[in-house]
Amino acid sequence: MNKQTSPSPPHSLKRLLHKKVIPFLIVILIGFVIWIIPHPDEVSAEAWQLLAIFVATIVGVVVKPLPIGAIAIIAMSFATLTKTLTLENVLGGFSNNVVWLVLFAFFIARGFIRTGLGTRIAYIFVAILGKKTLGLSYGLVATEFILSPAIPSVTARAGGVVFPVLQSLARSFGSDPEHQTQKKIGAYLTKVIYQASVISSTMFLTAMAANPVVVTLTKQAGYSISWGKWALGALVPGLISLIFMPYFIYKIYPPQIKDTPDAPKIAKEHLSQMGPLKKEEWMMLGIFILLLILWIFGPFLSMHATVAAMIGVSLLLILGVIHWHDVIKDDKAWNTFIWFATLIMLASYLNNLGLVSWFSKQMVVAVGGMPWQGAFALLAFIYFYSHYFFASNLAHVGAMYPAFLMVALGVGTPPGLAIPVLAYSSSLFGGLTHYGSGPAPLFYGSGYVSVKSWWYVALMVSFLNIIVWFGFGSIWWKLLGFW
Amino acid sequence: MNKQTSPSPPHSLKRLLHKKVIPFLIVILIGFVIWIIPHPDEVSAEAWQLLAIFVATIVGVVVKPLPIGAIAIIAMSFATLTKTLTLENVLGGFSNNVVWLVLFAFFIARGFIRTGLGTRIAYIFVAILGKKTLGLSYGLVATEFILSPAIPSVTARAGGVVFPVLQSLARSFGSDPEHQTQKKIGAYLTKVIYQASVISSTMFLTAMAANPVVVTLTKQAGYSISWGKWALGALVPGLISLIFMPYFIYKIYPPQIKDTPDAPKIAKEHLSQMGPLKKEEWMMLGIFILLLILWIFGPFLSMHATVAAMIGVSLLLILGVIHWHDVIKDDKAWNTFIWFATLIMLASYLNNLGLVSWFSKQMVVAVGGMPWQGAFALLAFIYFYSHYFFASNLAHVGAMYPAFLMVALGVGTPPGLAIPVLAYSSSLFGGLTHYGSGPAPLFYGSGYVSVKSWWYVALMVSFLNIIVWFGFGSIWWKLLGFW
Repeated sequence: MNKQTSPSPPHSLKRLLHKKVIPFLIVILIGFVIWIIPHPDEVSAEAWQLLAIFVATIVGVVVKPLPIGAIAIIAMSFATLTKTLTLENVLGGFSNNVVWLVLFAFFIARGFIRTGLGTRIAYIFVAILGKKTLGLSYGLVATEFILSPAIPSVTARAGGVVFPVLQSLARSFGSDPEHQTQKKIGAYLTKVIYQASVISSTMFLTAMAANPVVVTLTKQAGYSISWGKWALGALVPGLISLIFMPYFIYKIYPPQIKDTPDAPKIAKEHLSQMGPLKKEEWMMLGIFILLLILWIFGPFLSMHATVAAMIGVSLLLILGVIHWHDVIKDDKAWNTFIWFATLIMLASYLNNLGLVSWFSKQMVVAVGGMPWQGAFALLAFIYFYSHYFFASNLAHVGAMYPAFLMVALGVGTPPGLAIPVLAYSSSLFGGLTHYGSGPAPLFYGSGYVSVKSWWYVALMVSFLNIIVWFGFGSIWWKLLGFW
Repeated sequence: MNKQTSPSPPHSLKRLLHKKVIPFLIVILIGFVIWIIPHPDEVSAEAWQLLAIFVATIVGVVVKPLPIGAIAIIAMSFATLTKTLTLENVLGGFSNNVVWLVLFAFFIARGFIRTGLGTRIAYIFVAILGKKTLGLSYGLVATEFILSPAIPSVTARAGGVVFPVLQSLARSFGSDPEHQTQKKIGAYLTKVIYQASVISSTMFLTAMAANPVVVTLTKQAGYSISWGKWALGALVPGLISLIFMPYFIYKIYPPQIKDTPDAPKIAKEHLSQMGPLKKEEWMMLGIFILLLILWIFGPFLSMHATVAAMIGVSLLLILGVIHWHDVIKDDKAWNTFIWFATLIMLASYLNNLGLVSWFSKQMVVAVGGMPWQGAFALLAFIYFYSHYFFASNLAHVGAMYPAFLMVALGVGTPPGLAIPVLAYSSSLFGGLTHYGSGPAPLFYGSGYVSVKSWWYVALMVSFLNIIVWFGFGSIWWKLLGFW
């Protein structure tokens, strides 16, 4: 085992009993209440128990009686102990390829930091746009946006490509969770870039893995969506939200560092001090470009983004750009690995055990007989915010999209309105939580944004997105003659 | 990410090119040679490629061009890249329950260290048997042996119960890999206790998970083995090897600290200084006893050893006996998690892809026509040492035991000889490698024994075991009238 750098036992015990006991009681109480509610006949006891465990876990993640990873382990134990899930079910999440893509993204980011390439790229950004924090955020948003049609894995794109630069940028401004300086600039940039990745995922059919699934499911309902039509429908709302979102977050979740008039000059000096690219920076750059290529052409090579990342990490290890002993010391990576795998697993069984389909059926009943405007608004609202119960866009789409589209059309919603609203919601809702989409755990795991801030800002941005995408959007689609 | 404590890039690169390049070439060459050998018709191309990858990986683990964990990642990449295995196959190992039992055992051991309970127990051992290192080793061997009939998971027993005490003992003698003092006493104790766990696993039907499988498979061949008969047959050879093995390792792999005349006195002083059990020690002790109970009665409660460990870890986290931020900083645990899961996965597919059954068939042909003595000796030898290709006793038994028993009986070996030899081999061969059975990665992962020492000592002990178990054993079984 490694060195013992931890508070003395009795101390931690006191902390537990005094400060931790209330959150604990909240979690247990909420879980218990749901647990004892008699489950509907259509829902199995296991499914209902799992709902109780899942909700309690999410509450635990928010009120934090213990670190999120510890809560995940406890949730796993409780689920197996109560025979709600089997040991195999519970451990299954650790083979999930998105979880591994996130883990590998952590390792790749490490390479950017070790070699100094990340810092260099950050300084280049600063040198060009560094006068104002807002300018920087737009620079990163633009990067994310330009790559989005090309890299169909949002986790690879936002996590593997933009995230390392974002990290180095924050560090170059002395913003680092290790030193409690997240608020300086890192927290703001993290939220903005993450939300940008959500929006750009929505704008192109090829910007996120779940989008093609949406198209397939829509086709099964009898309507076809082309790449162009998807992009056209998303163009105006997408651009508007990409333009307003960074400023919006700037207002509701401002960075401490706003104006940095001298930053460009300083950045240029740093760059000149750094001199030409070091040998290891060249190697990092080369592997990074290879990764870009593999992520862009992966679909044609039928290579999964996680395989590409695995190859990238292997090359980094072989060339000594990253060292294994650094990689395994990356506690943030392992922490994320544990809790994200657990949440994905719990959420997927909520679906597999039939809770979601039961819930969807209740919806059908609920909105029956309403005028289509009201019915559809309710459906869309529920479809969007039910994402608090999912740890993957793909899972959410697969579980709810067909049912909700069917009902929406059933109550008489014009297809040209129902389809874009539900289709675009299918990636927009990924922004809500720190586990709601592939890259989320990575951005959250870097430690810049607390759970509470994450959920607050995300909720606000979701309102903005809904207004822009479905308010202005519906007008835009009317103009386009979609409906 | 966490702090950057790693040699400067160019340096590591030079190291790679100069010192690492030869081992690399060896690994690649061996893998390549096997790869290009035309595969037999009965064996699929994938199976043969996997053999090449597996052998290259094992060679890599021994000659170490990179840390074992890095080699595992590279092996995974290569297997997926060459379409030998799918991404799902490759990531599947990380859901293996034995892998998780090992990981949890690391976390439990951390609790022993943090609370000081491990040190206390260690001092008690030293106070009683501490005059000589040899005495200490027999003390631990006795502990392992007494628990073995009761705890059917050797990983839980040797890993979860004895390992933490062993670690604390080594530390109490100032033997710690962190300070390059493994050889003082820790390395010796690690090898002895691990080999003791292998021998005690062999002695009782309920001492290892694979033993009941052996009994079942033997029954299918038409012969029954009772708990008593198993124990009776193992009694004499088992006790002889338990008595000789520690001394044997003492001779071929001696500890630096041999005589510690004052140790008991010092230990007693330490114990009096420590005073009564601290609150956290009580909690650790309570959870430890709970674990013992769950591990002993698990089979009756139909609770898997991994579930019990998971519950133990959860309680330790809830009570603050261990802290999550310590747990995720345990790089040795994560390193072991990665490489052990990968080796288990590779080995299991060697079997699933039919390579093992093909190999067994070749055996049948090879020994046909030989006199039974020679044929059986050859079969037993191959059955035993083919364990270099397995990362689990259970897998090895399932894959080869029925075929080899059938052939052995087919060539005319007396059942009363063939069955005990193959049955007892089925746990004895677990001692060969640092990945050959559940607890092995834990003992190896603690960093006290290098791969080369591990393999050397293990091979020597395997000779001792074969002489004792199958030399004296066959006489004992004759006396018992087995054959």
